[in-house]
Amino acid sequence: MRILVMNPNTTASMTASIKAIAEASASPGTEIVAAEPQWGPESIEGHFEGYLSAAAVLDRLATFPSDQPFDALVMAGFGEPGREGAQELLDVPVLDITESAAQLAMMLGHSYGVVTTLDRAVPQIRDRLLTAGLLQRCAGVRGTGLGVLELEEDQERTVAAVVGTARRAVEEDGAEVICLGCGGMAGLQEKVSAALGGMPVVDGVAAAVKFAEAAVGLGLSTSKVRSFAPPRPKAIGSWPLSAHLPEAPGSPFGPGSGPR
Amino acid sequence: MRILVMNPNTTASMTASIKAIAEASASPGTEIVAAEPQWGPESIEGHFEGYLSAAAVLDRLATFPSDQPFDALVMAGFGEPGREGAQELLDVPVLDITESAAQLAMMLGHSYGVVTTLDRAVPQIRDRLLTAGLLQRCAGVRGTGLGVLELEEDQERTVAAVVGTARRAVEEDGAEVICLGCGGMAGLQEKVSAALGGMPVVDGVAAAVKFAEAAVGLGLSTSKVRSFAPPRPKAIGSWPLSAHLPEAPGSPFGPGSGPR
Amino acid sequence: MRILVMNPNTTASMTASIKAIAEASASPGTEIVAAEPQWGPESIEGHFEGYLSAAAVLDRLATFPSDQPFDALVMAGFGEPGREGAQELLDVPVLDITESAAQLAMMLGHSYGVVTTLDRAVPQIRDRLLTAGLLQRCAGVRGTGLGVLELEEDQERTVAAVVGTARRAVEEDGAEVICLGCGGMAGLQEKVSAALGGMPVVDGVAAAVKFAEAAVGLGLSTSKVRSFAPPRPKAIGSWPLSAHLPEAPGSPFGPGSGPR
Amino acid sequence: MRILVMNPNTTASMTASIKAIAEASASPGTEIVAAEPQWGPESIEGHFEGYLSAAAVLDRLATFPSDQPFDALVMAGFGEPGREGAQELLDVPVLDITESAAQLAMMLGHSYGVVTTLDRAVPQIRDRLLTAGLLQRCAGVRGTGLGVLELEEDQERTVAAVVGTARRAVEEDGAEVICLGCGGMAGLQEKVSAALGGMPVVDGVAAAVKFAEAAVGLGLSTSKVRSFAPPRPKAIGSWPLSAHLPEAPGSPFGPGSGPR
Amino acid sequence: MRILVMNPNTTASMTASIKAIAEASASPGTEIVAAEPQWGPESIEGHFEGYLSAAAVLDRLATFPSDQPFDALVMAGFGEPGREGAQELLDVPVLDITESAAQLAMMLGHSYGVVTTLDRAVPQIRDRLLTAGLLQRCAGVRGTGLGVLELEEDQERTVAAVVGTARRAVEEDGAEVICLGCGGMAGLQEKVSAALGGMPVVDGVAAAVKFAEAAVGLGLSTSKVRSFAPPRPKAIGSWPLSAHLPEAPGSPFGPGSGPR
Amino acid sequence: MRILVMNPNTTASMTASIKAIAEASASPGTEIVAAEPQWGPESIEGHFEGYLSAAAVLDRLATFPSDQPFDALVMAGFGEPGREGAQELLDVPVLDITESAAQLAMMLGHSYGVVTTLDRAVPQIRDRLLTAGLLQRCAGVRGTGLGVLELEEDQERTVAAVVGTARRAVEEDGAEVICLGCGGMAGLQEKVSAALGGMPVVDGVAAAVKFAEAAVGLGLSTSKVRSFAPPRPKAIGSWPLSAHLPEAPGSPFGPGSGPR
Repeated sequence: MRILVMNPNTTASMTASIKAIAEASASPGTEIVAAEPQWGPESIEGHFEGYLSAAAVLDRLATFPSDQPFDALVMAGFGEPGREGAQELLDVPVLDITESAAQLAMMLGHSYGVVTTLDRAVPQIRDRLLTAGLLQRCAGVRGTGLGVLELEEDQERTVAAVVGTARRAVEEDGAEVICLGCGGMAGLQEKVSAALGGMPVVDGVAAAVKFAEAAVGLGLSTSKVRSFAPPRPKAIGSWPLSAHLPEAPGSPFGPGSGPR
Repeated sequence: MRILVMNPNTTASMTASIKAIAEASASPGTEIVAAEPQWGPESIEGHFEGYLSAAAVLDRLATFPSDQPFDALVMAGFGEPGREGAQELLDVPVLDITESAAQLAMMLGHSYGVVTTLDRAVPQIRDRLLTAGLLQRCAGVRGTGLGVLELEEDQERTVAAVVGTARRAVEEDGAEVICLGCGGMAGLQEKVSAALGGMPVVDGVAAAVKFAEAAVGLGLSTSKVRSFAPPRPKAIGSWPLSAHLPEAPGSPFGPGSGPR
Repeated sequence: MRILVMNPNTTASMTASIKAIAEASASPGTEIVAAEPQWGPESIEGHFEGYLSAAAVLDRLATFPSDQPFDALVMAGFGEPGREGAQELLDVPVLDITESAAQLAMMLGHSYGVVTTLDRAVPQIRDRLLTAGLLQRCAGVRGTGLGVLELEEDQERTVAAVVGTARRAVEEDGAEVICLGCGGMAGLQEKVSAALGGMPVVDGVAAAVKFAEAAVGLGLSTSKVRSFAPPRPKAIGSWPLSAHLPEAPGSPFGPGSGPR
Repeated sequence: MRILVMNPNTTASMTASIKAIAEASASPGTEIVAAEPQWGPESIEGHFEGYLSAAAVLDRLATFPSDQPFDALVMAGFGEPGREGAQELLDVPVLDITESAAQLAMMLGHSYGVVTTLDRAVPQIRDRLLTAGLLQRCAGVRGTGLGVLELEEDQERTVAAVVGTARRAVEEDGAEVICLGCGGMAGLQEKVSAALGGMPVVDGVAAAVKFAEAAVGLGLSTSKVRSFAPPRPKAIGSWPLSAHLPEAPGSPFGPGSGPR
Repeated sequence: MRILVMNPNTTASMTASIKAIAEASASPGTEIVAAEPQWGPESIEGHFEGYLSAAAVLDRLATFPSDQPFDALVMAGFGEPGREGAQELLDVPVLDITESAAQLAMMLGHSYGVVTTLDRAVPQIRDRLLTAGLLQRCAGVRGTGLGVLELEEDQERTVAAVVGTARRAVEEDGAEVICLGCGGMAGLQEKVSAALGGMPVVDGVAAAVKFAEAAVGLGLSTSKVRSFAPPRPKAIGSWPLSAHLPEAPGSPFGPGSGPR
Repeated sequence: MRILVMNPNTTASMTASIKAIAEASASPGTEIVAAEPQWGPESIEGHFEGYLSAAAVLDRLATFPSDQPFDALVMAGFGEPGREGAQELLDVPVLDITESAAQLAMMLGHSYGVVTTLDRAVPQIRDRLLTAGLLQRCAGVRGTGLGVLELEEDQERTVAAVVGTARRAVEEDGAEVICLGCGGMAGLQEKVSAALGGMPVVDGVAAAVKFAEAAVGLGLSTSKVRSFAPPRPKAIGSWPLSAHLPEAPGSPFGPGSGPR
């Protein structure tokens, strides 16, 4: 089977990391294809970027080469919007690393803690877990203070920050399992687990790949009964966007470039 | 003060209707500016279209003419995503008709019912209310079976459908106030209320305009403390999209045009 | 339009302060009338006094001069009972500063904290927010340790106490907006906000006045469908109380004056 | 031990009925004293009357003859406010028939249904159970359509109405135990239970008397730690009210006698 | 009336302590019979032992001498499973000390804290309270660090540990009442209460005995309508177990004796 | 890898059916071993039997031949207790078909409905989902009226009953995915899905096998941090039970054979 793993941002090195952990997690016979959107933010650290990414991911999916069919989609953004759109658009199962991490964690312990990047992402992640019906067993969500792209800069520092934050989740919040709360943390679970005395540490990409294999293996896909029925036929201006966009490099977006 | 009312879809006649009800609701001295995105779906009836619209609305906001400043934004999509992105992007208060309708309804009665378009939108609306922390007093969300663009076709039929559905919300769900669950229903509240014996019927556009006036009047705006801090400086490919898109008319999107 | 702002206790200086903030918040064309009950406690710091006040306020409303009609009622007690009774009794909209503060806060940030007077009021306020369906987004309720009437004694001390408590709400509880949790704090929001780096600080009296204007402006009032249908005709002994009470000054109530 | 059972309304025949069921439920050695307020509504069927009754009951308690000490208080209003005020005012345990009925029901079955008087009382009762932390196991609250004073008019009709409503609670809501949701239904539990095949039917007065005996028997009373600490010393105008009121008969309260 | 109090473990000295506190709590005319299972763990400190105990208790009940009828059952394990099985098996009311402690505490204060043995029991107790519908008013559950059998070793140390833990429940969690969270703490409530300034401390055995007296006194028992209908006739291998077991002393169970 | 699938009851034909569906669901390279307890009920239809089964399953696990190691355990009882005990006892991951079915369903649709055997099991299943933190997305649990052992008698009748009940779950409850709520329904999912127009139907045994493969594949197992730490060393009388029991056939258990 072939699983498409979608990095929600345009940073190719992160796509490569995510692909590597997905491949390491996949069963024999599972092929991993990884991709990132053709436009949008280089990292996602808030709602604004998350919503842009959601559309960019849907664009990428709508224009994915038809000669490269896939059996399941894994969306590798943690706490980010967009999954329900892909569930409408596609016939194959769609897994999300936020929910997959939480679900695997709930299989392994009574309650789980999420260790993520910036503190500002905490309410957003909690809201995604709430909507997914998975918040009850969440002991807490905590930020390390490292931005998404900072995670890759110095792995040792990243592991230390994740471990320190995870310790507080265990001791103060009562977490029994730790979820790595960013696609950019994929691959750290063994080091973090070792530093935490071997307690289970769940990487969402790995969990989602396994759950995608499970759904495909059982011949099951997204229900089309109500919420995720296919989009109705209608006019969508400039859609798909990438077909209309020139091949433009990323434009810088900084303070002062906003509307007012 | 000047309030920008954003229709989330590209149907200009709906923008006009929404503008009319906004103007009718505004206090003396409040100017209403209405706009729709420059690209995206002609109506929004699901998650896929909702996510496209969210990005299209953010694009519209990011490129809104700087010589047309506004003091508050009203987002006129019911149950649709995107508001949190605008709250990050803008310094002015951002009101959403889903939450505003629910909040005004909770001021007027013990529990409220939402009457919306298609049944498939029901879980999406419930999820938005859940995330907003407003679901507890919601007696139920019910669909009329009419699509967004069908609402405008035959107002008499629309009123009849809304009234019939509202009656069930009152009798079976215990609703004490009715919220009109689609920007395209704006303007019907008086007729619906009259048919329901005068019980309060809340239109979200009207509510959101009033709440925008309230926030601006008190000199308050979105907190930038955590969730809605401004986006961090970073590269965003092809952003803003509309600056890169040719002025393209809506492309048809129908069965078979999807990715697989 | 004319809004009656009801101070729940009999301390006239507090009525004057509340009136001042209400007037400062009102739109042009809105007239504020302020009143307090003719009997009952000089301040409200618990359930016993709250229940006396609820009846005293209803008495005041039932005997309010019929030649002084009002278009909306604002009840200026924070966390105190009684609102639902006024909603039954009156045909005009009834706003409550506890709920109004929370609702406005929810428009401005992801979660809000309440800073109130004594610690003993905390569970009472939480219960009111729970019943109102507004607790989910509440990050926490914290007391300053100052009693209601102490708030007026030394404004500088009061502001310092509120600011210190608000800081903990932000840092420890994750509050993104602060609500002033006592009618006696009305007027402090600017100073508190300035000390907190400009984050939004909501005064319930101001919020409720704005929401009263919104409801009246839209021609909406309390639903009479179920919960707040008018009282049924029946005999009520000694009602209204004030018509039977001699014009008695407040009797002292202290330790030992209770029933046993 | 001596238990004071307080009928919240001024209808003496209801006080007598409540006293009878309380006496029938009491253990040997328990003396039941029953009382009603000296002013206030003849029956309580909504929030307005409930709030008046709360103050009237507190007045009655504050002026209860000091030579008639009691060891516990049972408040016999179902779904009505006021209990927390009595918990502050008194040193002895205070039981409430709403909570007691629910608690006893939860000891006997998985979920319970409440059968009450008018449909308008349903949200009020649910709110009291919510605040009390007892709503989760409530299968539903249903009205019979009979007013409080109508209950006494024709017992056969009343039993039939209660039984019919209880059947729906069992069959449609999944109730495994039925709570009689009005002090005026006290005494009907055996007939209702027999008609329902012997399933447990809980009368709140009986439950509360037993729980009062339990608390007193164990030497336990209301915690004074936070919520129910004694009222602080302060001036309360015209308090206690009954000391200032002339001995006035009930004044009629009907349509048109309200404030506007 | 005769109440059977069942110690869930096989430690006879604990049965004796539990019996003593049950007798001290019982009303005149109530006879307490105490028993422990004929097989199973000497103490219960986790789910594995809890599930063994549940079956051992049901076995004990199924083979209880028929010439020793009882009118109610009190199950003296805190946070442990099994109660629902006894409710199916028996016709008499079944009280559980976890739920009884919480329910009595809720009659006495706004929120309660539970002080138990080991930290590992905390999630298990919370889950039982959640399932029972009693968690909302729980301010927190805290462990003392003492194992079940350690409680009896040095009463002074035990009281000190309980008091210290209870202080944190009051100060940090807002508990207004303390529940002793282990059958082995029965009898300490007076000392603990005295050390906490007289605040109410609830022992579950005492509470359950009183509630058993209440149910029996009112002629009420477990509903057989749905959840707790009698077991259906069927073959149960080796049942009752004790009829087939040799009279074997406890076999030691330690590290390495598990399955793998 | 080797997965042990444990039928909770002693009916060997059901073990065989469960084994067949587990094998059909397993990936190449996964070996399924199936077992049932050596004592206990022939089917489980309530709490009493569930608790017996929990202990019988733990006994079977504690005495499982040490030369037959397994890498994961799947517990095939729906809504039944015991899983947490196995999680303490074993070092390998433990999956439960109730939770696994719900979790897989939540990956496939917005909300799921459970179709089970007898109506009396409904509250028990809901409680398990509640404790597991998976109830929020549950649209409802409905019984078919067929007992566990009746399921096997006439497959056509069983499919018809499941399909009819599932239709109500979709139409009245809003379920988008159906979970088969009994281990004895394993193998029916394709027929039921076909009759429901191809909507996803989840069998818990299949889901749990897949999730066991996922956990083992990722090298993850139960957290031993708190809730599921290994049992402490202590004396357990007559343990393991099966070592002390004679090889006795099932004794009949019927009306009148209970304790009183």
